[in-house]
Amino acid sequence: MPGTKGKDYWVGFDLGGTKMMALVLDEEGAVVGRKRRKTKAQQGPKAGLVRIEETIRIALDDAGVEPKQLAGIGIGSPGPLDLAEGVVLEAPNLGWKTIGLRQSLERALGCPTVVLNDVDAGVYGEYCFGAAKEARCVFGVFPGTGIGGGCVYEGDILRGKSRSCVEIGHVRVLPDGPLCGCGRRGCLETVASRLSIAAAVAAAAYRGDAPYILEHAGTDIAAIRSRVLAEAVRAGESVVERIIRDAAYWLGVAVGGVVHLLSPDVVVLGGGLVESMPDLFLEEVMRSTEEHVMPSFRDTYVVVTAKLGDDATALGAAAWAERTLDEKDRSDHAGGA
Amino acid sequence: MPGTKGKDYWVGFDLGGTKMMALVLDEEGAVVGRKRRKTKAQQGPKAGLVRIEETIRIALDDAGVEPKQLAGIGIGSPGPLDLAEGVVLEAPNLGWKTIGLRQSLERALGCPTVVLNDVDAGVYGEYCFGAAKEARCVFGVFPGTGIGGGCVYEGDILRGKSRSCVEIGHVRVLPDGPLCGCGRRGCLETVASRLSIAAAVAAAAYRGDAPYILEHAGTDIAAIRSRVLAEAVRAGESVVERIIRDAAYWLGVAVGGVVHLLSPDVVVLGGGLVESMPDLFLEEVMRSTEEHVMPSFRDTYVVVTAKLGDDATALGAAAWAERTLDEKDRSDHAGGA
Repeated sequence: MPGTKGKDYWVGFDLGGTKMMALVLDEEGAVVGRKRRKTKAQQGPKAGLVRIEETIRIALDDAGVEPKQLAGIGIGSPGPLDLAEGVVLEAPNLGWKTIGLRQSLERALGCPTVVLNDVDAGVYGEYCFGAAKEARCVFGVFPGTGIGGGCVYEGDILRGKSRSCVEIGHVRVLPDGPLCGCGRRGCLETVASRLSIAAAVAAAAYRGDAPYILEHAGTDIAAIRSRVLAEAVRAGESVVERIIRDAAYWLGVAVGGVVHLLSPDVVVLGGGLVESMPDLFLEEVMRSTEEHVMPSFRDTYVVVTAKLGDDATALGAAAWAERTLDEKDRSDHAGGA
Repeated sequence: MPGTKGKDYWVGFDLGGTKMMALVLDEEGAVVGRKRRKTKAQQGPKAGLVRIEETIRIALDDAGVEPKQLAGIGIGSPGPLDLAEGVVLEAPNLGWKTIGLRQSLERALGCPTVVLNDVDAGVYGEYCFGAAKEARCVFGVFPGTGIGGGCVYEGDILRGKSRSCVEIGHVRVLPDGPLCGCGRRGCLETVASRLSIAAAVAAAAYRGDAPYILEHAGTDIAAIRSRVLAEAVRAGESVVERIIRDAAYWLGVAVGGVVHLLSPDVVVLGGGLVESMPDLFLEEVMRSTEEHVMPSFRDTYVVVTAKLGDDATALGAAAWAERTLDEKDRSDHAGGA
């Protein structure tokens, strides 16, 4: 590997609102160390940066790797981000505002660091190691509290000027639909996020239409997580299944729009909600997408579920660091020659 | 220019359903010859291919350039196309099916030829020479009989596997909306194409609500072209203006979706309809787009009208031929070294 001089390991990091995870990869891309911890965002950004560094050091210990053997670090972070500077501009889940993530880690661990959007990293992970290996154009959709989207086009992450693009959660699918957190109406998030599902399920439980949910989770939407939704469906709670199929239908509406615009070969569905009910989501999103694309597009794409689970973002971040820092090396060398 | 050995001229060609045009460009990109003729599609594909060759030869004569001085030809064609082979798979406006456009021209004129989607070529033209010069990400929308779309991302035309992508005309903007030619409902084309505008205006004229249109064009939608629509608006026919503003509103809905997915820096509105009423379209599309994007996207893009008019596709096709054939030369040279 040019320019890395015996520095053969990469760290991929997933910075989430509730948990963080570091993976250590060797030069073949094999995971040789890992550490997962709670984020403890309430302790503030300064403690958070220290905690990230510690988590990486523990994962390195786990792998028997010294920091000086690191070629680089990739971090998937919630955004918006300043990609060029590696700064987290605003991350409400973390309580962060204008935090120099890249600079902090480069100082602490002495190796180049790349910050990218967490969903982009997850889609890139699935492109490199998972459900969409080497596909020409991959589009990923990850319904969670909101709905994340990302696109890898001919090996590159598709991006806005200085931020991630692909805000599929705010594509309007229903004119005059429900009010969205962004202030507009009918965004995909208002009808297909885990939050919108939990809200509809809580109302059904309150009305007495979802006794399994009422018994096992109550009517607090914070308690209506993916797992209990999946259990309710398995237990035969038909209103819950109906609500989830409706959400998957709307995902298909939005995915159909994406097929017309980007013509992806592979559409990857991921995130905890999909993972808890992969067959149900796959079936309904495939059906709805097919209904919402022109006939001539029908055989141009496949819909699949993500393969890497919780590792996707960290794996993708490491691979992206390797790709972009290698490129930088090459162009530095070319420039200096 | 490596590998072109004194072949310093390029031809750009716009193959339309009603007219065709050849431009001859010198190595600086200046137009030194041109010829525009009717397509006469009813004469069939064989005559059509001969007519294309003749049109190019007349434009070369006009420029005082010999065919042997040509480095390459770029042709913007309606599709779908097989881009790799340069074959027109199906072009209903031309009555063509599986026509080997590239092979035919390479034989006739003895120089490498590239076939691309006509709208892609138009957007690439605006990117190289017009309203979106050198922008990082350009999205073009051209409402006509249908609605064409194209995207140039970091200097490359964004594409599907073997065809153009960006079928913005078939993005659904209105669930359960009007029936579309593609068999689905509520596609953008059903509410914002020139055809949908003409149909609504014809109905208004028939009802007696659009006397200017009734007098100057009648109720045949084939006669309700862009020019008479613009004249009616100028004459104060308020129902016509209302119908056009509604169409522009829906364009903004779709453009808003594109902003969330691709985050373009520049959105270019073009085509004959927009050119006949640029201010009206610009105002209404800007307003509607702004209404339909999240606040954080509001300052990330500009909406502009196309600058190159009828030359956009031919200019873009020539520039794309230069770019891709040059690349091929370079990689041929690299491969042979």
